Amino acid sequence: MQAFMDKDFLLNTETARVLYHDYAAQCPIIDYHCHLAPQQIWDDVRYENITQVWLGGDHYKWRLMRCAGVDEYYITGGASDYEKFCKWAEVVGKGIGNPLYHWTHLELQRFFGYHGVLSAKTADEVWSLCNAKLAEAGYTSRGLIAMSNVETICTTDDPIDTLEWHKKLLADDSFKTNVLPAWRPDKAVNIEKPDFMDYIAKLAAAAEMEIKSFADVKVALAKRMAYFHENNCRLSDHGLNYVVFEPASDETVEAIFAKKAAGETVTDMEVAQYKTACMLFFGEEYKKLDWTMQLHYGCRRDNNQRQYAILGPDTGYDTINNYAPVDQMAAYLGAVEVKCGLPRTILYSLNPADDQAIDTLCGCFQGPEAVSKIQHGSAWWFNDHFTGMTNQLSSLASLGYLAGFVGMLTDSRSFLSYPRHEYFRRILCRLLGEWVEDGRFPQDYDILGEIVKGISCSNARNYFKFPTK
Amino acid sequence: MQAFMDKDFLLNTETARVLYHDYAAQCPIIDYHCHLAPQQIWDDVRYENITQVWLGGDHYKWRLMRCAGVDEYYITGGASDYEKFCKWAEVVGKGIGNPLYHWTHLELQRFFGYHGVLSAKTADEVWSLCNAKLAEAGYTSRGLIAMSNVETICTTDDPIDTLEWHKKLLADDSFKTNVLPAWRPDKAVNIEKPDFMDYIAKLAAAAEMEIKSFADVKVALAKRMAYFHENNCRLSDHGLNYVVFEPASDETVEAIFAKKAAGETVTDMEVAQYKTACMLFFGEEYKKLDWTMQLHYGCRRDNNQRQYAILGPDTGYDTINNYAPVDQMAAYLGAVEVKCGLPRTILYSLNPADDQAIDTLCGCFQGPEAVSKIQHGSAWWFNDHFTGMTNQLSSLASLGYLAGFVGMLTDSRSFLSYPRHEYFRRILCRLLGEWVEDGRFPQDYDILGEIVKGISCSNARNYFKFPTK
Amino acid sequence: MQAFMDKDFLLNTETARVLYHDYAAQCPIIDYHCHLAPQQIWDDVRYENITQVWLGGDHYKWRLMRCAGVDEYYITGGASDYEKFCKWAEVVGKGIGNPLYHWTHLELQRFFGYHGVLSAKTADEVWSLCNAKLAEAGYTSRGLIAMSNVETICTTDDPIDTLEWHKKLLADDSFKTNVLPAWRPDKAVNIEKPDFMDYIAKLAAAAEMEIKSFADVKVALAKRMAYFHENNCRLSDHGLNYVVFEPASDETVEAIFAKKAAGETVTDMEVAQYKTACMLFFGEEYKKLDWTMQLHYGCRRDNNQRQYAILGPDTGYDTINNYAPVDQMAAYLGAVEVKCGLPRTILYSLNPADDQAIDTLCGCFQGPEAVSKIQHGSAWWFNDHFTGMTNQLSSLASLGYLAGFVGMLTDSRSFLSYPRHEYFRRILCRLLGEWVEDGRFPQDYDILGEIVKGISCSNARNYFKFPTK
Repeated sequence: MQAFMDKDFLLNTETARVLYHDYAAQCPIIDYHCHLAPQQIWDDVRYENITQVWLGGDHYKWRLMRCAGVDEYYITGGASDYEKFCKWAEVVGKGIGNPLYHWTHLELQRFFGYHGVLSAKTADEVWSLCNAKLAEAGYTSRGLIAMSNVETICTTDDPIDTLEWHKKLLADDSFKTNVLPAWRPDKAVNIEKPDFMDYIAKLAAAAEMEIKSFADVKVALAKRMAYFHENNCRLSDHGLNYVVFEPASDETVEAIFAKKAAGETVTDMEVAQYKTACMLFFGEEYKKLDWTMQLHYGCRRDNNQRQYAILGPDTGYDTINNYAPVDQMAAYLGAVEVKCGLPRTILYSLNPADDQAIDTLCGCFQGPEAVSKIQHGSAWWFNDHFTGMTNQLSSLASLGYLAGFVGMLTDSRSFLSYPRHEYFRRILCRLLGEWVEDGRFPQDYDILGEIVKGISCSNARNYFKFPTK
Repeated sequence: MQAFMDKDFLLNTETARVLYHDYAAQCPIIDYHCHLAPQQIWDDVRYENITQVWLGGDHYKWRLMRCAGVDEYYITGGASDYEKFCKWAEVVGKGIGNPLYHWTHLELQRFFGYHGVLSAKTADEVWSLCNAKLAEAGYTSRGLIAMSNVETICTTDDPIDTLEWHKKLLADDSFKTNVLPAWRPDKAVNIEKPDFMDYIAKLAAAAEMEIKSFADVKVALAKRMAYFHENNCRLSDHGLNYVVFEPASDETVEAIFAKKAAGETVTDMEVAQYKTACMLFFGEEYKKLDWTMQLHYGCRRDNNQRQYAILGPDTGYDTINNYAPVDQMAAYLGAVEVKCGLPRTILYSLNPADDQAIDTLCGCFQGPEAVSKIQHGSAWWFNDHFTGMTNQLSSLASLGYLAGFVGMLTDSRSFLSYPRHEYFRRILCRLLGEWVEDGRFPQDYDILGEIVKGISCSNARNYFKFPTK
Repeated sequence: MQAFMDKDFLLNTETARVLYHDYAAQCPIIDYHCHLAPQQIWDDVRYENITQVWLGGDHYKWRLMRCAGVDEYYITGGASDYEKFCKWAEVVGKGIGNPLYHWTHLELQRFFGYHGVLSAKTADEVWSLCNAKLAEAGYTSRGLIAMSNVETICTTDDPIDTLEWHKKLLADDSFKTNVLPAWRPDKAVNIEKPDFMDYIAKLAAAAEMEIKSFADVKVALAKRMAYFHENNCRLSDHGLNYVVFEPASDETVEAIFAKKAAGETVTDMEVAQYKTACMLFFGEEYKKLDWTMQLHYGCRRDNNQRQYAILGPDTGYDTINNYAPVDQMAAYLGAVEVKCGLPRTILYSLNPADDQAIDTLCGCFQGPEAVSKIQHGSAWWFNDHFTGMTNQLSSLASLGYLAGFVGMLTDSRSFLSYPRHEYFRRILCRLLGEWVEDGRFPQDYDILGEIVKGISCSNARNYFKFPTK
């Protein structure tokens, strides 16, 4: 029997222990996709108490509390921070099998030196201990990043963003971590939204030009991409319902844009055609700029309209969807490939039933520009747990080239979430260890160590080609 | 090596053995969804021989025999009960990996004290032993239920049912088990069926009113729901191809009903609109009545028309389907939530590829009225086996709150099927034991025992709020 | 810790070792579905070097090299055979978790007596050793087949094929293996293809008749089926996007054929109707001929149009698709069953998310003509790996009758691929061994050995009823 979450947590073979401690644990973190606010890094923010860090904006935790029947008063409502923490402690203490159980205890161990078990019984003890620590020097946003050995962070930024904080962070030699913007132009793509034209007005202002057509939209976006590139952006990200492909002529797409601009309602097909035109444009631009394109899809958002009205988006009311036709995704990738060659691309579906199709589709568009130029992204969001990561790694290994994988990212809003990289690395080493000790691969630490270090950091370093600070 | 199906069957860790024997095995059974005939309970029926109990109506066993190439003569045909039993013994004896192998041996052990192995070789021995036992006192429907420590049974009942046998059972103090009706109004929903209007006529008779419109249908159903509620029903159940959402105006739905009443053919879209109207109505009514709504979907029924003509429905010719758009299911749940708040709801898909989407969708509609108010139902029908249950539990734990799960049900037509609860509990304890002994959760029997007892019975008791007998 | 790929490779229990060595390993191979060229068997071809055998046409290996970022020059381009081999050695040496790693080493062990590890370091050693062996007597196509104890081979043949080489092989008593044709009429079905009418002209020539209508197509195909039957064909195979069912009247289908013959474009619906008519015809004919029908579906082919233009089909640019409605597949099978009874049928989906639906659908159409008359085919192509095979076997066992399974096939173009049968058998024995040693099935070698030998060869022998040589 393994001890509870000790230094060999999840490392159930000697091979796994060697691979983790001697290789994986030595690697810095390249967190190439997260939702940290760059201003909060610049401001080197502090937190009054553990509730503010943990429960202030973490919809993963909110969901688990809701599933446990906790009243919203103790989640996003008017309860005190102490009361909210006690509710969380009670819920997570019975959260067997949920990744939040492990994330919570890894964070308690790594940042707060607490090696006990959080539950209703220990809530007070942990509350006091964490809050005392949070008052110490170093327990700021930058301090937590530094404690976590983070080499690179990519935030998620709107095309209209000034990148003011990224510039300041770049100029600040005292902070070692390389904080880069990433381009997320969803608002320019989502023509079905009621505030789409308002956004286009903002985009026009940011690009210092008028926008009267889809051609203008593209010019404005190209200007902003150039600006992002100057500020060291090398990575884009798209949040899509599914990867759509309904190609239409330029005239058709202009007519759709004009219709929307005139305040008329666009049809589902027109939305799909407009989005396809955007995605074809982006694919081509990213290729020119030598950026990586991330496509996140398979999510149905904001399902609870009552709570949406109160709390807005990203508050724990999203679900895995199951409509994502490979036919359209393959046709989209094929069209970009034929036109100009695909940029480096990472595909992430929120539906794990898509994993095998993604792995085989990736294999259709590789190229010598990069190892595993087209990648199956790390188990994402709802799949970011022991089983989800194990299945993604196993599928990728069976159908592709695991050794070329760019590995983990946090996708997080919290400065305490870096142990998710550790969790991932332990799961990776466990899987490789099981294969080795089952006689399925030689116990050759030269090769295994190279693979583990590659997936932990050096593959990402080579793949993304980020400018160094 | 573990001995074959001994007392520690499936309990491969010390933690699992403690959790099962000291906690799970102590719990009574709350079988909140089954297809037992209440009259057979009232009549305290006896069986002449083991073939009648096992093979009289069990389409699970029929399917396995058909897969093994057995002629229908020995399944539902004219062969003698002895011949049929011998065929079954031969087939199940080679049924490695099939849950019927385990169910069969658990039933032989628990009800008949037979701890050998059933196969062609032992068929005669088992035939004699079982038939002798079946002649003993206590080997009646009520006796078998009592042997199994069943606290509560919910049958599956049509709105037009008189609930005559439920009333008698309720009044009979000599029988301890609480036998409750459950409301299954599929025939009022399935407007595409040729005998739909015949059913509406029966519904009208049962509700003692005329039905000339969809509004009348709703009044009649509401009257019957009130009657079911008076007779202690607290649970509904729907068998759906998929959870449909095609909302239409009242006028449109009335026109569809009128068209059907006039003997005309309704289109697929009209069927979807009528069904949506029904389901919106039911969701609202269940909320008012404080009932739980079960949605079973993902099945394509009666695929073999030749056999259907001979044997009718529920005879082993159904399959998992793969059309069940999350878009529609989410929109349906969202619409009820916005209108009046969802009732407690349990979602079951026959397609295990839907598991993760269900788990995340549940998280979008929780509320403080119950722990895990919206639930992912137990691995159902074709998924009711070792791998299926393990995967459902694992997915639920990873994406939701396992500790709040209402657990197992038999979904069965047989009085011998209660060991399926034991099978489920052993699998649950095995999974928890593996997590604990892998260092993923502390070996804290206070918390673990509470979780196991909760999933084995107390969660269901709290969730369904059944009136006690 | 198990030694790397020794004689007990994958056999992690005593039960597994007994089952493999005493039962499975004794069985000859019945390779009922492959893509070997019969002329190459007749010609008893030799290979100059290991690159020609391994990398000459194997798109599995090409894909892995592409995923590793290897330039096409070293894959299908102008590099020397030695250079290509070195690249392959480097890539596969880091190919942890990929089935090619195991296939490669099994082939090195079984055919070349090399028990080391292939990697960049050992590339030269392996290159020399293999090439020396390939120059020895017996290292020809027939020799490699004989070394592998292959009882029966079914190739994949077009209806217009003369079967010249099959006839010669049948007449050659010096070659023990029974080489049979299999009927693959995709080109007569794929009416959407630009060269469809050219193919129809060739079919007319082969059938020695004029083809002016779909009725003529059917007559021509029936003549060719009779010819194939005379030449010992007992097996058909269809490569389908999905199993389509859009029935139409004879007049409609004739009009579609006429439209195509006139050079007009046929609509998607017309394509579906034509294909449905073909598949209904084939189902009926196979039943008359007592052939087995294989349906392979779930693939989206030729996704990379640039590479397609250079390399053509079957060069590593296909993917798993996720559009395959059970509604249509069930309706197709049901229609044939009602009309004339289904022939023996094997269903293979490239999408493993379809596995459970296939297993339950099979159960709807069984019959006493064969054990498991309707089968879920072996884990195919992209699923032909440790996890994929384990999952397919486990799903089949849970939902059907594993003991009736006809087992493995290579689906290969290579004379070195027979160890895939060994790989499959080891995985099968491992799975059964785990179940037995976990107490889930008795350690009864009479029954277990019969099951293992059945799945390894005798089930296929009984099921396909191939004429003996």
